[in-house]
Amino acid sequence: MKELEKLIDRIIDRVNVNLREPSFDAGPFVRHLIPFDQYVKFYAFYGLTPYHPLYFHFSHASLAGSYFLGKCVVDHSVLYKSDIRGDELKCKGEVLHKDCLAIPLHDDEVIRIKDSFLVKTLVHNHSHDPENPEEFLIQNAVALHYANIHGSSVEGSFIGPFSTVDLTTLHDCVIGRFAYVQAGELSHQEVAAGHIWIRCGDRFDFSYQFDPAVLDTYVAMEPGRMPTGAFIDFIESHKGTFQAVYDSGLTECRTAIGHGSSLSRYAVLRGETVIGDNVLVAQRAFLKDAWLGKGANAQENCYVICSHLGGDNVTAHGGKIIHAQLGQKVFVGFNAFLRGRPDTILKVGEETVIMPHTIIDLEEPVEIPAGRIVWGLVRNRADLDRHSVAASELVKVQGEWTLGEMRFQGSGSAFVRSFQHRIEHILEENGAYFDGIRNLGHAQKEQMISFNVIQPYRQGNREGIYPSIDIRP
Amino acid sequence: MKELEKLIDRIIDRVNVNLREPSFDAGPFVRHLIPFDQYVKFYAFYGLTPYHPLYFHFSHASLAGSYFLGKCVVDHSVLYKSDIRGDELKCKGEVLHKDCLAIPLHDDEVIRIKDSFLVKTLVHNHSHDPENPEEFLIQNAVALHYANIHGSSVEGSFIGPFSTVDLTTLHDCVIGRFAYVQAGELSHQEVAAGHIWIRCGDRFDFSYQFDPAVLDTYVAMEPGRMPTGAFIDFIESHKGTFQAVYDSGLTECRTAIGHGSSLSRYAVLRGETVIGDNVLVAQRAFLKDAWLGKGANAQENCYVICSHLGGDNVTAHGGKIIHAQLGQKVFVGFNAFLRGRPDTILKVGEETVIMPHTIIDLEEPVEIPAGRIVWGLVRNRADLDRHSVAASELVKVQGEWTLGEMRFQGSGSAFVRSFQHRIEHILEENGAYFDGIRNLGHAQKEQMISFNVIQPYRQGNREGIYPSIDIRP
Repeated sequence: MKELEKLIDRIIDRVNVNLREPSFDAGPFVRHLIPFDQYVKFYAFYGLTPYHPLYFHFSHASLAGSYFLGKCVVDHSVLYKSDIRGDELKCKGEVLHKDCLAIPLHDDEVIRIKDSFLVKTLVHNHSHDPENPEEFLIQNAVALHYANIHGSSVEGSFIGPFSTVDLTTLHDCVIGRFAYVQAGELSHQEVAAGHIWIRCGDRFDFSYQFDPAVLDTYVAMEPGRMPTGAFIDFIESHKGTFQAVYDSGLTECRTAIGHGSSLSRYAVLRGETVIGDNVLVAQRAFLKDAWLGKGANAQENCYVICSHLGGDNVTAHGGKIIHAQLGQKVFVGFNAFLRGRPDTILKVGEETVIMPHTIIDLEEPVEIPAGRIVWGLVRNRADLDRHSVAASELVKVQGEWTLGEMRFQGSGSAFVRSFQHRIEHILEENGAYFDGIRNLGHAQKEQMISFNVIQPYRQGNREGIYPSIDIRP
Repeated sequence: MKELEKLIDRIIDRVNVNLREPSFDAGPFVRHLIPFDQYVKFYAFYGLTPYHPLYFHFSHASLAGSYFLGKCVVDHSVLYKSDIRGDELKCKGEVLHKDCLAIPLHDDEVIRIKDSFLVKTLVHNHSHDPENPEEFLIQNAVALHYANIHGSSVEGSFIGPFSTVDLTTLHDCVIGRFAYVQAGELSHQEVAAGHIWIRCGDRFDFSYQFDPAVLDTYVAMEPGRMPTGAFIDFIESHKGTFQAVYDSGLTECRTAIGHGSSLSRYAVLRGETVIGDNVLVAQRAFLKDAWLGKGANAQENCYVICSHLGGDNVTAHGGKIIHAQLGQKVFVGFNAFLRGRPDTILKVGEETVIMPHTIIDLEEPVEIPAGRIVWGLVRNRADLDRHSVAASELVKVQGEWTLGEMRFQGSGSAFVRSFQHRIEHILEENGAYFDGIRNLGHAQKEQMISFNVIQPYRQGNREGIYPSIDIRP
């Protein structure tokens, strides 16, 4: 058996040992998921800028098609077309505030991935685990297609396709497909597929459950096979354009972009696309006939097609926006899927929050008023009424409140404030408020990025494995 | 002052300390030679194959446009568009025979470049210094455009443009432009520009001196400026086509090539070019309307244009062949310049040896018979008579013999045998004799090469310097 097969088996064993309690076998999901020749076919790449502390260490790993930025250590792992973006890691000397504690960092934070198998997974932000502030750790873990691991240390867990673990430390958990969890810390738990769950201690708890039958039409998965459903169909229909981007050696800018903006050379640009000032377009973003106003952004695995973003829009990792007009400061959460059609345009008013994993897939034109919070599944105007609330109403909620499949418990105003606070923070991090001198963010810092390309062994026992590499300033 | 400027000054100082005795100042040649923005503009790259032991270590170095293969260590150096090809390094356990000694290698050999400044320089083969068999060392050295450092450890030396140091350990030497030296070991010596010198102990000594006025028309150089003359004019006229090769992400093969052959993705291919079996085309080779017969090769900085190579032809690093027809086993040495014209074709008969640094620049059609040894400058048939001899005549020489500016001393037959032996050895190394199973050489081993791309800091104090990188199996 070749080295890479042994490595994958070893990862499966390690994950399964952790998942004895939920009694979950990751093996069938992982073992034949990626054809072996794919591991050799795609190069890995890492970014270099003057702004991000530099340290990369890769050993005994397969990294096909994966991207790295910031301090990353990867050992005994398989990362397939994943993004490990360490541009929001904490720095030495920073102080982490948690409850009443102030913990100063004695070293720069590092993303450390060990004995894990990540497919098309995004890893971003920094560890929110106060027990280990210098390490954003992903260990004995499996994450499948288009999962987001955001600000979450993960140990011994299985994360299904299109699911998001956000600001949540996981120990020995199974996260179902398209589930979104933001819950501080979870141990030995299963989160059901299509469960959208935001819990902040005893301040609030938001919970929505997608209808399993409907969910299957968007994302289904059988062990050992690619996910299926409308999300994958949509992504696959645009896949060809990305291959050209990877194959080209293109380094110069391909279009006029606004001042203070950056457009990754690994993004796809089509049609009449306009990129305003302070806009961040990350690698693996797809823009076609898109208008991105000042301070808007498109992160990894975002698609903005025939759409207009008014400005200061956050489109989180995996957000898709098709035939839509978004007002200023509209927020579109992780893996949200907003699909209007040429004759059924989606309009979204200012400062509306499309919650993570919301599906808006229109049968008729829908106009979402300004200042709303939207979740779940919206296909028409009637759906919208059952899956949204005005922020100004939600702030009045205290205690329990239900609407359709949504259950809320706690302080509505704390919930709304937490979203508003986070959106502001993301805009700052992205560089939306750059004034030419101050408020530098990702959009500005990644203007001068250079990409380095690494390749695996292409033959022999180590086929698909990368040489050990250690990169320092 | 920025880091890179300091580094260059430091290298100049170190070289000059070594060159106190010939009293040579490398500073004016080096200091403003390369505009600083060029150091940021070009990526460096290294090859990975299952055949070559792997170890790369780069620290405090600028590597713009340079290529590395095999075990290479580069510290405190500036390598600009240079080729460091460690695919003929000795391996652990091999035994180096020197005079009556047999020295077993206790480790794989490594190319180690330290405190040196190399511009468009080729480094190849392995150290022939029995005092340090595990290290092919280049230290405190400057080598300029299209110099070849071949099988030669070099310390404290200045090597001018288009010159070649071949199988010669240098200590504190100055090698003039377009000089070729193969002399075992040299200390504190100056070799004049255009001096072609092959000495093998007391067995033979071949020496030819180009007329300085003629030499200037081919290669001249003023301190701090690019070399000028016909060689550079020729190279510059083809430069644009290379940029496209570096910019493209091309990885698949662009033309049908023979069995057992490899064509570097960093070679330029134009017109109707035919590549037979067991052919090696290295990076930075240029082929246009070229016919390369079985077992032929084109190394780094070779140009084969409107020419026919009959088979088993060695075209050494920097050899240029234009409007020529070469019979089987014609050898063209380092930096030789063979230029026929559409109406003045050069024909070269079988097994003829065009010695390194020979200039054949035709005013009239010339046909060189089979089995000749050619050197110096040949523009017409009369020149050929003064600058060549039949190998069958030369073998009879014993003692002193002169012809024009050429002086020979010693055993003609030892000289001829040494060339024949070397040509056979190169053909073996290149894989010309591969039979589908045995006699694997470079042409076969580099078929499955993959290229890794590294980039420097693009801003700040370290602009143009590369991060430290350490790569192991």
